[in-house]
Amino acid sequence: MSILIVGSTALDSIKTPQAENPRLLGGSASHAAVAASFFSPVQLVGVVGDDFPRRYLALYRRHLIDLEGLQVVPGKTFHWSGEYEANMNHRRTLLTELGVFETFSPTLPARHRDSQFVLLANIAPSLQHHVLGQVRRPKFVAADTMDLWLNIALPDLLKLLKRLDLFVLNDSEAHQLTKEDNAFTALKKIHKLGPKYVIIKKGSHGSILSGPQGFFLCPAYPLHKVVDPTGAGDSFLGGVMGFLAAAKGPIDANFRRAIVYGSVVASFCCEGFGLTRTTRTTRAQIDQRVKELEELSRF
Amino acid sequence: MSILIVGSTALDSIKTPQAENPRLLGGSASHAAVAASFFSPVQLVGVVGDDFPRRYLALYRRHLIDLEGLQVVPGKTFHWSGEYEANMNHRRTLLTELGVFETFSPTLPARHRDSQFVLLANIAPSLQHHVLGQVRRPKFVAADTMDLWLNIALPDLLKLLKRLDLFVLNDSEAHQLTKEDNAFTALKKIHKLGPKYVIIKKGSHGSILSGPQGFFLCPAYPLHKVVDPTGAGDSFLGGVMGFLAAAKGPIDANFRRAIVYGSVVASFCCEGFGLTRTTRTTRAQIDQRVKELEELSRF
Repeated sequence: MSILIVGSTALDSIKTPQAENPRLLGGSASHAAVAASFFSPVQLVGVVGDDFPRRYLALYRRHLIDLEGLQVVPGKTFHWSGEYEANMNHRRTLLTELGVFETFSPTLPARHRDSQFVLLANIAPSLQHHVLGQVRRPKFVAADTMDLWLNIALPDLLKLLKRLDLFVLNDSEAHQLTKEDNAFTALKKIHKLGPKYVIIKKGSHGSILSGPQGFFLCPAYPLHKVVDPTGAGDSFLGGVMGFLAAAKGPIDANFRRAIVYGSVVASFCCEGFGLTRTTRTTRAQIDQRVKELEELSRF
Repeated sequence: MSILIVGSTALDSIKTPQAENPRLLGGSASHAAVAASFFSPVQLVGVVGDDFPRRYLALYRRHLIDLEGLQVVPGKTFHWSGEYEANMNHRRTLLTELGVFETFSPTLPARHRDSQFVLLANIAPSLQHHVLGQVRRPKFVAADTMDLWLNIALPDLLKLLKRLDLFVLNDSEAHQLTKEDNAFTALKKIHKLGPKYVIIKKGSHGSILSGPQGFFLCPAYPLHKVVDPTGAGDSFLGGVMGFLAAAKGPIDANFRRAIVYGSVVASFCCEGFGLTRTTRTTRAQIDQRVKELEELSRF
């Protein structure tokens, strides 16, 4: 089954202590879409300016991503620039130029309105609402967010939570939202805000799913070197939703493996700048790492 | 098979935002010994003063811990006092009174010298050497340490590492020892210092075993409330070593389950002040949590 993904489509300029990479393909929707494309057909909804490199459109197409919902308009593509510290755990934003994203308010193409799997990648909650409102009868809706929206758009986000099946956030955001230090207590509180499934991401420490069948503790694939973690969270959710949309049978029966697959796609994302490593990955390599992770956590 | 445990035997006064508990039974060897006692007979080596409460000797005895190697001498028992912040991740030492521990230099009782499983719980590396030197042909030797010894006794610790089968440390200590941010790279470096097996403990994020069979990613049992984490690391290693000493077959075949058992005993430790929760735990409760952890991490 195909999956509708809306979020940011951007150019990322990323500095690490080792290297500087200007104007990489980035944005939450780009990472999520490429990740999901390993499992399901993807319909991308976003906006880019007329400066958007043609090679990035070609990259989407190589992943068979449906670009009918990607607007190309006069102006500049959303540009984000950030710098990582040596341990890759802390980054600071150097620059955010919204460009054409500032006035983005998509109208879904007719055939996107019947999407069953909807992934609202990290953008303003009001935009996530706007897109979701145009989908007729979604079967499964997931959303990601970031600390910025918890700070400046909490009422919108709280309204969105009531419409979600799955909400994904990282451990510091879970703390920010619930004021709880304990992840399991935070998860309980987040369920009360609406979503049936909640995932807390803990970076290299893995992730925790909470749902009707209780908790699942998902390990992270062991990486000896993280080149650039930008987009890892988006890749994770893209992988999870791509796997769920493709899987046969009830959601609950597939959820654990979906998270392991999301986690593995995120591991590839971290091994290169922007999407450079993810886009060279094959489904066979992903399956191989899932097998390894099974072996590494079996007891 | 019985297990020889040396380390500190102390009185701990522990403050948390919720409560203050003076003069609890504590010390690395006390926690490790009680944890190991769920699986194997334990021989404890330590020293206490004549102020040591009789009820704590009774507690050791209830766990069938052999106290022939526990010296009771005139003077004050080692007393540690510490305070935890609200999230239990940071603690500060308020007071350390070494008391009779200052001149502790144990001579092992004759029948302890043939011990096959030796656990050198956290004390000065020179003392760990001193005890290990008295054991004739140990089959499996494990040691724990702390940041203090990395700071003030690194040469002694490095010498000790060459004599160990298993070295256990937490993630910040691994970083301190190797200057590596990446746990898997740190593990490689630590193997080069001697130990065949290395475990990095990550608190509520679980632990990583590295050994001849590669890595094992061990989850932590999900706790909704941590009352007092003091001694959790000692309980973990006590559980690991107790399980290994009791298990049939080669070490490698039992190591993963040993770590899961250690992790579960540590979870009980965190649920009460000092040893109050651990000592009320039953083997059946431990087995039950191991089963739950299996279910929580299966995919």
